[in-house]
Amino acid sequence: MVGVEGLRMVEAALGSGLRIEALLVSDAGERHMARLAPLLKSDTQVLRTSDRLFAGVADTRTPQGIAALVQARQATLEDLLRDCALVAVLVGVQDPGNVGTILRAAEAFGATGAATCSTNELGTADPFGPKALRASAGSALRLPVLHGQPVASLLSQMRTAGVKLYAATKESSGQTELSGPPVLRPWEADWKLSAAILIGNEGAGLPDDIVRVADACVSIPQAAATTPVGVESLNAAMAASVLLYEAMRQRMAKR
Amino acid sequence: MVGVEGLRMVEAALGSGLRIEALLVSDAGERHMARLAPLLKSDTQVLRTSDRLFAGVADTRTPQGIAALVQARQATLEDLLRDCALVAVLVGVQDPGNVGTILRAAEAFGATGAATCSTNELGTADPFGPKALRASAGSALRLPVLHGQPVASLLSQMRTAGVKLYAATKESSGQTELSGPPVLRPWEADWKLSAAILIGNEGAGLPDDIVRVADACVSIPQAAATTPVGVESLNAAMAASVLLYEAMRQRMAKR
Repeated sequence: MVGVEGLRMVEAALGSGLRIEALLVSDAGERHMARLAPLLKSDTQVLRTSDRLFAGVADTRTPQGIAALVQARQATLEDLLRDCALVAVLVGVQDPGNVGTILRAAEAFGATGAATCSTNELGTADPFGPKALRASAGSALRLPVLHGQPVASLLSQMRTAGVKLYAATKESSGQTELSGPPVLRPWEADWKLSAAILIGNEGAGLPDDIVRVADACVSIPQAAATTPVGVESLNAAMAASVLLYEAMRQRMAKR
Repeated sequence: MVGVEGLRMVEAALGSGLRIEALLVSDAGERHMARLAPLLKSDTQVLRTSDRLFAGVADTRTPQGIAALVQARQATLEDLLRDCALVAVLVGVQDPGNVGTILRAAEAFGATGAATCSTNELGTADPFGPKALRASAGSALRLPVLHGQPVASLLSQMRTAGVKLYAATKESSGQTELSGPPVLRPWEADWKLSAAILIGNEGAGLPDDIVRVADACVSIPQAAATTPVGVESLNAAMAASVLLYEAMRQRMAKR
């Protein structure tokens, strides 16, 4: 069960086709009901509360007085792999803002789904937590998301299903050893086939044993990589967005 | 004069080639000096202070005890237009996090510079403010940035210099009237020539009179645009990153 808060997020939940267990409305939130009424099913339970009580359960500093309890979609691997799959696989992405942003980009660029995985060392932030949900602008509710998967078995199932595994790696990160998979620029990979983009931890990147099982590493070249001091590469969410865009570009140009 | 705070930002400032007016070090910050010493010029003034005093001037909640006063670069239009120009022009981007993220993407993807403009109604957040600086991961200090430009005269100077003006617009936003400039997908625009990407306000987009003077509108197609309710497009920073990537892709593929 997922709690979502605020007018825009509640609208996104009501429009997602997910089962709404209850709508919570405070006195101040009552003004939004005219706008939401057309989206409500006849059997949706509406719970009314005082502003003070609402503020006590609200997660935001200035609550809008409107929230919903949503039965989140339990996606299956089959959901993610329908048609020509494009799946964002998050492996130890710890910042919920990054998780949400990646899901938002995944939906915008036509990904078929996303999976969040943990490694031995690192978990991925909960895609249905309040910060990730907000950063996703509701995409976490609409996009099929497989949550908390053990990464090794997920990748081997994807490989069996014919999905190409692309590891997003940084330029000259040491993750691209001689013995490892080939390193491609984003536009050198063929995204018109079923593909998964593996996105690692913000600081540490992908674990070496994940990179080794990938079909290729995809590395975004960066002009700033020539600057001597203090230059950070794109962050995990920006890099993932760019790779998802590249996949969409190739798929649309194909048609 | 710009104040930057924290070890990574101070490192970025010291490595930027900008003039450092002073380095401020608290007792707790002293531990970073061994790492920073090789980057210091002999005439850099180092001011030492107590942790308590430092916390009083610090902008972050858990200060690292290290800060620098930097003479920010005053970029000229000529700086921005050197070589084959690629300039991000921010017109009323109000969120400092978005401003910083766009500058970071601009540097990463090889832009020659950025300009921040205000319109009659909306200003662009200060690229040298603490939140924008942090979100830029220091790019605001390294990339030539022309700050607070009146947008009309800037665009007409760019046009005179032969720079193509591309307005970043949303799909079916009403900004793409029949009488307006042609609407291209990102990969349909020719980014190998000198180009500027005009990025508008987070909510309102670009003003109509700016869109009308552009050579073309560039609109990122989005799968989610078909979902009925509550779907927001990519945010301003994500859209700008994708367009900057597309420009780099075409320029690198050309070589």
